Amino acid sequence: MTEGQSSHRDFAGKRVLITGGLGFIGSHLAGRLVDWGADVTVVDSLIPEYGGNLFNVSKFADRIRINISDVRDEHGLRYLIGGQDFLFNLAGQTGHMDSMKDPETDLEINGRAQLAILETCRKFNPEIKIVFASTRQIYGRPQYVPVDEKHLVRPVDVNGINKAAGEAYHILYNDVYGIRACALRLTNTYGPHMRICDARQTFLGIWIRQVIRGEPFEVWEGSQLRDFTYVDDAVEAFLACASDENANGRTFNLGGLEVISLHDLASLLIKVNGGGVAETRSFPPERKRIDIGDYYADFTAIRTAIGWEPRVPLEVGLARTLEFYRQNLDKYV
Amino acid sequence: MTEGQSSHRDFAGKRVLITGGLGFIGSHLAGRLVDWGADVTVVDSLIPEYGGNLFNVSKFADRIRINISDVRDEHGLRYLIGGQDFLFNLAGQTGHMDSMKDPETDLEINGRAQLAILETCRKFNPEIKIVFASTRQIYGRPQYVPVDEKHLVRPVDVNGINKAAGEAYHILYNDVYGIRACALRLTNTYGPHMRICDARQTFLGIWIRQVIRGEPFEVWEGSQLRDFTYVDDAVEAFLACASDENANGRTFNLGGLEVISLHDLASLLIKVNGGGVAETRSFPPERKRIDIGDYYADFTAIRTAIGWEPRVPLEVGLARTLEFYRQNLDKYV
Repeated sequence: MTEGQSSHRDFAGKRVLITGGLGFIGSHLAGRLVDWGADVTVVDSLIPEYGGNLFNVSKFADRIRINISDVRDEHGLRYLIGGQDFLFNLAGQTGHMDSMKDPETDLEINGRAQLAILETCRKFNPEIKIVFASTRQIYGRPQYVPVDEKHLVRPVDVNGINKAAGEAYHILYNDVYGIRACALRLTNTYGPHMRICDARQTFLGIWIRQVIRGEPFEVWEGSQLRDFTYVDDAVEAFLACASDENANGRTFNLGGLEVISLHDLASLLIKVNGGGVAETRSFPPERKRIDIGDYYADFTAIRTAIGWEPRVPLEVGLARTLEFYRQNLDKYV
Repeated sequence: MTEGQSSHRDFAGKRVLITGGLGFIGSHLAGRLVDWGADVTVVDSLIPEYGGNLFNVSKFADRIRINISDVRDEHGLRYLIGGQDFLFNLAGQTGHMDSMKDPETDLEINGRAQLAILETCRKFNPEIKIVFASTRQIYGRPQYVPVDEKHLVRPVDVNGINKAAGEAYHILYNDVYGIRACALRLTNTYGPHMRICDARQTFLGIWIRQVIRGEPFEVWEGSQLRDFTYVDDAVEAFLACASDENANGRTFNLGGLEVISLHDLASLLIKVNGGGVAETRSFPPERKRIDIGDYYADFTAIRTAIGWEPRVPLEVGLARTLEFYRQNLDKYV
């Protein structure tokens, strides 16, 4: 096995549970794992504002178990978690504005439900291995870039606070109870299956919808620097962490091959698409107060520990994404 | 007004709400404020395992409003918070072992209820000024000492994770909504009114109970370094932060005049008491895994921002504390 590359040997015949498994990244994980011979159950609430979409798994739906339920449903968790070898824990509320409008729901999903999942593992399946999807949002406004894992956590929204707590529970249960768990702090992840009807996952989803429709898209400010992870690279990070004991108890940034301003990203998208119009706008007031300026990640820690690094260049990833949505736009809007 | 010293002018005639106001620090705050002419309401659940004790306010109970309710009761909060000028927000679950045995209750009190308090302030009293009681526990095992506020947060128990979230909500509501709030990360606080029937607030409570009874007390390991804040100094920090706009949005460590090993603290306590026996034990297994080694705070930030610093030497504070419990032991065991 190449360092940092997981293989089917790690997962063939293994029982795998994916929360948020009908969502963007979760559905790609499910597809990869089922191709490798894993016994896959996906749990998803299909709440319309979140990322779940049955079309995401349509090509292999007959080969996985689909359980429509919410991670806030503690009663079902015991059965679902029992006997699993791996838990990819991706279910979450990801909308930043939503977390400000309804902070309690965000806490229920990103905080309390995570604690309940870990308590269930502790009581009924302490041998399970967990990879948790965290977010760069917990850092808030970077004090320096690239941001490494030593950077202070000072979230600028309720979502970031609750995701930080959810992440910390996982690391705590690893350290105190020996339930192997690690957390990945995702940056902007993009690719097929991402939400494009709104900006709840990434603003890039809306941009892609608009250029495919031949309509202008909005760039807010434009000079901010960002990094982007193509979904296949993110999936590889989840799989590599699941199969590598060096990941246990660790929190890792993911990152991208390139650092790019939003202006340059808009130009690249228009170029790859073969056309499009970007309109620059100043921030709406309600976004300005939770804007974070420049962000890009230092992903040295995960590269050193388990050998992961991003492989898909932005131009390639954007081309694949555009191709997917040209074929399937009606399933996502 | 002397820098870092609050005065009656800041609070005379002001309406003040203290959650956890029948507890250790909250009751001292109430006493000071009522002497200064403030209109004081204390909220306390009097849950037996927590710090509330009606005896703590017995000398001035007729001059304050005592409201027995729990901060998880969102319905009562609206009325209680309405019209207040200051909120000293000290209600919390503080037991570290309790947070591991019942993590959900810890989250309800230290997480969800805090969010509800802040939402209530946002909707019904955005002019209020809040000082929140946080804890050094959120740092986990120090990576260096003295620990300053730039130190990473990596709690070693569920309590630390939830207190970190509670603290972060306060800072967020300051930053995003302009609800003036700050947080104090308390180290071991000691003095009259502290819990001495168990170690839920500080192990020092048990030590004091034992030496007063003429019974041996247990020192676990003994070489760990700690700092201690006498309760009058802690109260002064809360008051100074409430009356100083420089505190808004800030998180400050409190600390002590001295750094001392537990062995030396035991010797000092025995000396001040005029007798006593300390027995050294190794850590019980369930404590060992959440032990943090040495901790003492760098409190430069609060000294620089608002001029607070500890003033009461350990020997003086211990003498006052012993004197109080010699008179009132029966009210606390």
